[in-house]
Amino acid sequence: MRGLFISVEGGDGSGKTTQLKNIKNYLDEKGIKNIFTREPGGTEISEKIRGIILDPENAEMADITEALLFAASRAQHVAEKIRPALENGITVLCDRFVDSSIAYQGYGRGLGEVVKEINSPAVNGCMPDVTIFLDITPEDAMARIAERGHDRLEREALELHKRIYEGYRKIIESDKMNRIVSVDASKSPEGVWEEIKGILDEWLERKQKAEYPKE
Amino acid sequence: MRGLFISVEGGDGSGKTTQLKNIKNYLDEKGIKNIFTREPGGTEISEKIRGIILDPENAEMADITEALLFAASRAQHVAEKIRPALENGITVLCDRFVDSSIAYQGYGRGLGEVVKEINSPAVNGCMPDVTIFLDITPEDAMARIAERGHDRLEREALELHKRIYEGYRKIIESDKMNRIVSVDASKSPEGVWEEIKGILDEWLERKQKAEYPKE
Repeated sequence: MRGLFISVEGGDGSGKTTQLKNIKNYLDEKGIKNIFTREPGGTEISEKIRGIILDPENAEMADITEALLFAASRAQHVAEKIRPALENGITVLCDRFVDSSIAYQGYGRGLGEVVKEINSPAVNGCMPDVTIFLDITPEDAMARIAERGHDRLEREALELHKRIYEGYRKIIESDKMNRIVSVDASKSPEGVWEEIKGILDEWLERKQKAEYPKE
Repeated sequence: MRGLFISVEGGDGSGKTTQLKNIKNYLDEKGIKNIFTREPGGTEISEKIRGIILDPENAEMADITEALLFAASRAQHVAEKIRPALENGITVLCDRFVDSSIAYQGYGRGLGEVVKEINSPAVNGCMPDVTIFLDITPEDAMARIAERGHDRLEREALELHKRIYEGYRKIIESDKMNRIVSVDASKSPEGVWEEIKGILDEWLERKQKAEYPKE
């Protein structure tokens, strides 16, 4: 039985890190075999590619180069880690997946549809069963980040994050399979986690039913 | 006036290195402003990507990861070096270009059409005016390499090189724009160079006519 593939999406100030920890702990407590992984990265080769993407020395990098490097990193992540784990019945919890590329490069940087096209062979059909989108407007996220004393979203960045947020909204609109579940991330961390736990329970139950079907 | 974009394609034993030197010297002698560059590589970022592709430590690399890295390297090469040079009227001589990816990854590794799809945004319309394909069968190339004492094409590699060669033949068949000129590379280096010089002269004349049109 294939493992459950869960990805979590959300920008700065959405509480993603906290909720990823909650999910990981919950899976462990329930005794569900799982791995936690992240994008970009996740394998040795992907980490090397990530190094090139993030190296401040590479300021000359063209947007399309960056998008192709993200896709290459993802291709390796899927081929070497995610797909084998799922095929071995292991649940995969992934911090960001292809939706991040579509939102950040496609909408944020304005590369458009091409981001989907180059990611299609990278993912090669290995898509999350469920994607949890921590929904918070860039303005609210900015206010939250300012409170913790890191005002990293200055004016220019806010415009970028508005485009990215708009991108996520469009991805969700076009999500015909209802893969993506939007969670109101402006609530308290406890409230957000309650909602996520409900989604997880539903998916874990579905998996169990599929594994032990009634006769 | 846009510079002339020349790429040269050909496998091991095709005499590519010798002919690239001949072309470079000829352009220099004629006083044509030019740069010589190569794939994968050509810019600092592309060289870093090339490092990941060629590092023997990265044996786990999936074919699609490799193809995306080649495309990323090319995207940067085009954006940072080739396109700006051409736009400044500089002739660009490139050791391998997108045809290599289609032949090696698409046909050689069997990735198929997807290689064209991921390279399309990387190249973004910046295609060579003329591509010189040094045409020699893998069997003849192998015999030539064996003579110089480096029998690197053993049985398995020969099968791969046959697929790559077949790939080049198919690329040429589908080349509706007559961009690719096939040169019989089984001849003597001098004979091959005579033929290439003829092709170059024709292209340089075309450029000159375009630059100084008759009134």
